[in-house]
Amino acid sequence: MSNTLAYAVQTATTPLAPFEFDRRELGPSDVQIEILFCGVCHSDIHQARNEWGNSIFPMVPGHEIVGRVTQIGDAVTQFAAGDLAGVGCMVDSCRECANCKSGEEQYCEGGKLVLTYNSKFPDGTISQGGYSDNIVVDEAFALKISPKLDLAAVAPLLCAGITTYSPLKHWNVQAGQKVGVVGLGGLGHMALKFAHAFGAHVTQFTTSPGKEEDAKRLGADEVVVTRDPEALKALANTFDFIIDTVSASHDLSIYLNLLKLNGSMVLVGIPTEAASVHAATLAGKRRSLAGSGIGGIKETQEMLDYCAEHNIVSDIEMINIQDINAAYDRVLKSDVKYRFVIDMASLKG
Amino acid sequence: MSNTLAYAVQTATTPLAPFEFDRRELGPSDVQIEILFCGVCHSDIHQARNEWGNSIFPMVPGHEIVGRVTQIGDAVTQFAAGDLAGVGCMVDSCRECANCKSGEEQYCEGGKLVLTYNSKFPDGTISQGGYSDNIVVDEAFALKISPKLDLAAVAPLLCAGITTYSPLKHWNVQAGQKVGVVGLGGLGHMALKFAHAFGAHVTQFTTSPGKEEDAKRLGADEVVVTRDPEALKALANTFDFIIDTVSASHDLSIYLNLLKLNGSMVLVGIPTEAASVHAATLAGKRRSLAGSGIGGIKETQEMLDYCAEHNIVSDIEMINIQDINAAYDRVLKSDVKYRFVIDMASLKG
Repeated sequence: MSNTLAYAVQTATTPLAPFEFDRRELGPSDVQIEILFCGVCHSDIHQARNEWGNSIFPMVPGHEIVGRVTQIGDAVTQFAAGDLAGVGCMVDSCRECANCKSGEEQYCEGGKLVLTYNSKFPDGTISQGGYSDNIVVDEAFALKISPKLDLAAVAPLLCAGITTYSPLKHWNVQAGQKVGVVGLGGLGHMALKFAHAFGAHVTQFTTSPGKEEDAKRLGADEVVVTRDPEALKALANTFDFIIDTVSASHDLSIYLNLLKLNGSMVLVGIPTEAASVHAATLAGKRRSLAGSGIGGIKETQEMLDYCAEHNIVSDIEMINIQDINAAYDRVLKSDVKYRFVIDMASLKG
Repeated sequence: MSNTLAYAVQTATTPLAPFEFDRRELGPSDVQIEILFCGVCHSDIHQARNEWGNSIFPMVPGHEIVGRVTQIGDAVTQFAAGDLAGVGCMVDSCRECANCKSGEEQYCEGGKLVLTYNSKFPDGTISQGGYSDNIVVDEAFALKISPKLDLAAVAPLLCAGITTYSPLKHWNVQAGQKVGVVGLGGLGHMALKFAHAFGAHVTQFTTSPGKEEDAKRLGADEVVVTRDPEALKALANTFDFIIDTVSASHDLSIYLNLLKLNGSMVLVGIPTEAASVHAATLAGKRRSLAGSGIGGIKETQEMLDYCAEHNIVSDIEMINIQDINAAYDRVLKSDVKYRFVIDMASLKG
């Protein structure tokens, strides 16, 4: 019998279904975590369906993992059995390149970045994610989780949380600045919460007129329906920073034109199609268009600590693992407020 | 008889030809400058031929102007008759908005930015440029020119110089950094000189294999022919900063991929077509794509002073005004090293 129960996809066109496999034996610096909750990220769907063309099957998705430490290796110093712990998008990196050394493992240049699933360890084994009952991970890639927050609602912080927190911090978003959030989904609703917590005046951009009340509850000072050209015109040249969380192709210029002198717009949703950008739109106000990917381990811990201190979690809908395929369909229809989280207890049910 | 001799275009499809018109009477804060030299900028051609769709005819182009002050208004404090003086791309702005007050008049938001030609003063009169024997300009938009440098070769600093100096300073390019320059024309050769003077390790990117020797003479440590995919591959993730001076449409991704973590690429050539940008290319190394437009008056003066101190001027080919139409044809073929400058004495010849 294998040591791990999970849900996996066997091919790009088959649904998630029960699966068993073996996690590696506990190494000296490893912790084993009993997974209690795992968030459902849109990138799980992209990879389960091989939409990025790099999928390795069978695949156990899931990189928004929280649970409890059950065993620790001999050399582990930061965790003890019984501690709450989390795992995000990465489980290893080279740890030697300049980026790893500066705590930006997500930008590892040593060629050894191992993502939490659908990725290869140096020894050739394939990483498998959090739609499972346990994970074995080097303690350097495990996060400490405060018991103060609702554990299920913490899970999405490990990807949606850090992906939005990191650029807001990197671009130094501050109290009094005008910040725009494009898209109100898993990433967008976290961007809204963080930007609001940082004291910015936050504008939510949405294509759906029905989202106003919800956006305001989540922290928006203002909601702008982007199908209203007059509303956008009045906002030209007024934003310090815009974070764009939309992963479907869309027109960036309508937002770039809202940036004031030296303003930046950062893409964290990653459409597969290229966007069109006019040099004149950028040069006209010395604007920048940038992109950002998740965040390093140190910053992820900082974000989790910040959330514990400021009582910030994701808005979630809890599901049983047996409902995962239906949940994928709803994610694709943006029919979730705002993140599905799997109760992993259901795996044994 | 009119008070100003010039060369103008009368329509988008007719060549430049002799023209007379009246400059405004000298106001209290105005200086009158006898124009000795005027550079030929690619944007002169775009506007003379109405390629940006906003041309006002008749039009006297020219915004790289150097000469000698002949008269000053009663309230002028910074210039005296006999002083050398220059005029760049702007001759007025609102002077009251936040951008003007911070010395970034080129980004004036008061709606009163007046470009040196093809632009409207608040009273409705049309500005006319430097292909003429004199200009009357508010002293706030006149620059001091050192007598230490070759005056004709200083003229292109007023546009090509400040357009490249300003982003290198704004993005804080420093000694030891790896800087790329895309395109080796009027702007590119100035970017090369400045980046070299700032102590950066400078790589010139060019599509023409024949430019290596010249680029090295101008300050390149390395020259890369961008048609060689292997040469580009070896440079991936290594550049701190890239300045792109090419105004024809071209693929930006080959350069964006060369930026290291947190690197920026800045567009100062402004193609009319939009560029294609993949979010993943930006997010993969938290790269930024930005644009920059000329520079403010204060920074233009700083650049001119820096050039006088470090003996930096443009490489030029001097022409008589009678040869301006042939010069336009050669600019379009990139057949100039690296800027045409009109000897305005020829206007009286």
